[in-house]
Amino acid sequence: MQIRTEIGRADTRRVRADDARVVSDVLRRGIDRGEHTGSLDERDLSAEFGVSRNVVRDALSILAAEGLIDRAPRVGTHVVRRKAEHGLDALRGLKETLVSHGDVRNEVRVATLLRPPAAVARRLRLETGVEAVYIERIRLLNDEPVSLDLTYLVPDLGIPLIAHDIENNDVFALLEQISGQRLHSAQQSVEAANADPHSAANLDVPPGTAILLLERLTSLGPHARPVDLEYIRMRSDRISLHATAFRDTIRSGD
Amino acid sequence: MQIRTEIGRADTRRVRADDARVVSDVLRRGIDRGEHTGSLDERDLSAEFGVSRNVVRDALSILAAEGLIDRAPRVGTHVVRRKAEHGLDALRGLKETLVSHGDVRNEVRVATLLRPPAAVARRLRLETGVEAVYIERIRLLNDEPVSLDLTYLVPDLGIPLIAHDIENNDVFALLEQISGQRLHSAQQSVEAANADPHSAANLDVPPGTAILLLERLTSLGPHARPVDLEYIRMRSDRISLHATAFRDTIRSGD
Repeated sequence: MQIRTEIGRADTRRVRADDARVVSDVLRRGIDRGEHTGSLDERDLSAEFGVSRNVVRDALSILAAEGLIDRAPRVGTHVVRRKAEHGLDALRGLKETLVSHGDVRNEVRVATLLRPPAAVARRLRLETGVEAVYIERIRLLNDEPVSLDLTYLVPDLGIPLIAHDIENNDVFALLEQISGQRLHSAQQSVEAANADPHSAANLDVPPGTAILLLERLTSLGPHARPVDLEYIRMRSDRISLHATAFRDTIRSGD
Repeated sequence: MQIRTEIGRADTRRVRADDARVVSDVLRRGIDRGEHTGSLDERDLSAEFGVSRNVVRDALSILAAEGLIDRAPRVGTHVVRRKAEHGLDALRGLKETLVSHGDVRNEVRVATLLRPPAAVARRLRLETGVEAVYIERIRLLNDEPVSLDLTYLVPDLGIPLIAHDIENNDVFALLEQISGQRLHSAQQSVEAANADPHSAANLDVPPGTAILLLERLTSLGPHARPVDLEYIRMRSDRISLHATAFRDTIRSGD
């Protein structure tokens, strides 16, 4: 074999934790993809990954800490739940996205008109002094909080919007209904952060839990007018994000 | 104003932490976008966001904990650094992506041929018993670790690939060079996780730090053959991910 091994597997710097990381990564995605459900057997995993039982146990500890599996003496190791998938390619509201996973309900904590921060006003192209509608919602999937959404809307659409049933409808659906136009697109940024204690309490996770932060500026109509700026905290143990990338802007070579 | 306030700002359930969250979210993205650089003034921020100095301080504490700003007595509050932006729309290697941010170097920890886990073999369409090339790299931007990448490659491309200079080249560029074909596309999943102690040490962050996990299955050539499956841990204090979503598959309505 014409292999140049920079640092081989026998290298002393390679430790058990390196193998546990590999196993946890492949297994995490296998759980996400629904390839592993129900109980997990340490012996089977040891054979599948070609690693010792100790490495498998370390990997399972990582996934247990992330809330993806439960481990208990006698009962064994079980997959808690498959994550819901939220696409970053297609612009869909959470309710549209999670329709197959269960009942989505919004707990509306704030719905009001206020003077937005200057940075928010600029992105929504609002002149200084113009108020925006601000909505704060905890979004629940089957009565469990999965995201905490802070939403700024342009006032001409936001004011009629909050007169509607925003507990049971996606903002996206209402924006289209009120404007009579289709949404155009959204610019999205994704970051990870440790949940501050108050956000953690709202999402029912321990403080410091890694969560996904999604910023999304959504535009409406043929001229792509920015109308909706959201800051969304998602529980990463309940939702994963998905996107397709293409090497070339036009799918050439097909 | 026709506003229905579900829970107004004066509601007793709204606490200082709620306002701090809003300020931290808008400010975090402002820093990312390069709108805030250098020193941050509490009084200015208090005026800009229309909140008390205490709320500003709480927001700054959140961002300091994320490593985005430095705070010190007398010296004040400073933006540490702007995050590098990695697009999820266009398929680019890290070196291609970060060319404007500085020097990208790969510390190759493993480059070897091994029997991949069954789940990996399936996704790369390798028959049982066929070995894959496995590469483990720490990727450094200006000598600081920004990601830890585990890469599985199909053997016909992976074996010649690791004979090349993989310390200074993106795997993507080498795959195209060796195959004489363009990459086609990639299916990507994004999650957040608390770094396990060993991964944290590799990335030079405290254990438990929230990091981004990106799984990426990349395909090559006109028939989109899957050739490269990667599990990437990214430091969220150094890299943010970006994607554009469209409401309609075809950009109709334009």
